[in-house]
Amino acid sequence: MTVRRTARATVRRLPERGRYDRDVIDTILDEGLICHLGFVADGAPFVIPTLHGRDGDTVYVHGSAASHALKTLSQGAPACLTVTLVDGLVLARSAFHHSINYRSVMLFGTARLVTDSEEKMRALEAVTQHVIPGRWADVRTPNEKELKATSVLALPIDEASAKVRTGGPKDDEPDYALSVWAGVLPLGMSVGEALPDAALPAGIAVPEYVRRYSRGK
Amino acid sequence: MTVRRTARATVRRLPERGRYDRDVIDTILDEGLICHLGFVADGAPFVIPTLHGRDGDTVYVHGSAASHALKTLSQGAPACLTVTLVDGLVLARSAFHHSINYRSVMLFGTARLVTDSEEKMRALEAVTQHVIPGRWADVRTPNEKELKATSVLALPIDEASAKVRTGGPKDDEPDYALSVWAGVLPLGMSVGEALPDAALPAGIAVPEYVRRYSRGK
Repeated sequence: MTVRRTARATVRRLPERGRYDRDVIDTILDEGLICHLGFVADGAPFVIPTLHGRDGDTVYVHGSAASHALKTLSQGAPACLTVTLVDGLVLARSAFHHSINYRSVMLFGTARLVTDSEEKMRALEAVTQHVIPGRWADVRTPNEKELKATSVLALPIDEASAKVRTGGPKDDEPDYALSVWAGVLPLGMSVGEALPDAALPAGIAVPEYVRRYSRGK
Repeated sequence: MTVRRTARATVRRLPERGRYDRDVIDTILDEGLICHLGFVADGAPFVIPTLHGRDGDTVYVHGSAASHALKTLSQGAPACLTVTLVDGLVLARSAFHHSINYRSVMLFGTARLVTDSEEKMRALEAVTQHVIPGRWADVRTPNEKELKATSVLALPIDEASAKVRTGGPKDDEPDYALSVWAGVLPLGMSVGEALPDAALPAGIAVPEYVRRYSRGK
């Protein structure tokens, strides 16, 4: 399955890095912990980091009902939601050919304010499970008051593109003679040891899904 | 030293998390490997991930002279440059109080196209050194042709804010009685083993600044 490839959702710089199949797009959306959400207010761009979650063909974001971003976007302002994973530094022999290995998705569209309380609950489950799979079943789910204080926006995975760079550096032919180390330095996410809350009673063990937390795959 | 605190550069949601001193802002800008750059074209927002580098009071970004983002921004379109560091998952007893520990900066303004070739070279040095300190002195620096193919934009650190969350979860009083593990799961950047380019001659060792790569501090 592929997405709708509009002009703005087509990778123009280095088009060979463009990907339009949903498998690639969904994998990046799911592996990336946070997204950067863009909107326009008074003609100027705003880019805010926020958590997201995917349920099928929909990406959900949530926030305070009082948030500037959510208020603006729920009124029909166009959105751009970008998720970026950095996989490594690409160290070439020339400064010019330095790069990074990355996987990114840009999602364009108009967000829909989720008003149905069942969908809202499912969306919050999707975001929580996106952040840490297994958590939703363990915690107290939102009550009426909390649901009311939370705005949820839905963005369809429709007009979108992914951009992916992999592999080693590519230098200009003469530069291969230089005595400069070249290669890739892999980067990823590190997970530390879980730190229990000071108010946690003794005897509540760190759950398996916290101890084994990792993103991707 | 603090930044200019305009309306749009003031943290409105959870204002207690707002920071306006340059030390905090600069540290986040320097530790974050990439930024997300927002601009408006045809009334719609675009959010693109890109590398940046700081030199004193200026943040530089670079790209192909043919890039849509750089062309749009160099014509005076307003910009928002956001850098986000994720420090951990904050796992509360209720879904509602889940959060993440993060440090982010939003920089607003109008970018200036760097035309002076000396400043352009310094900017590319700043970006390279931002990505991997020590690299610039080792590699072949850009030639005339490469400089011409590269656009560099300068954004002053002037109208900006940082937003910082630290610490453990805060639950509602009754939820402390629940038998749910709560705490913080620290996250950061992992650095793998350097992978030499296939074309690298034997005898060129991995440089110290690659082997000991880390971000922050």
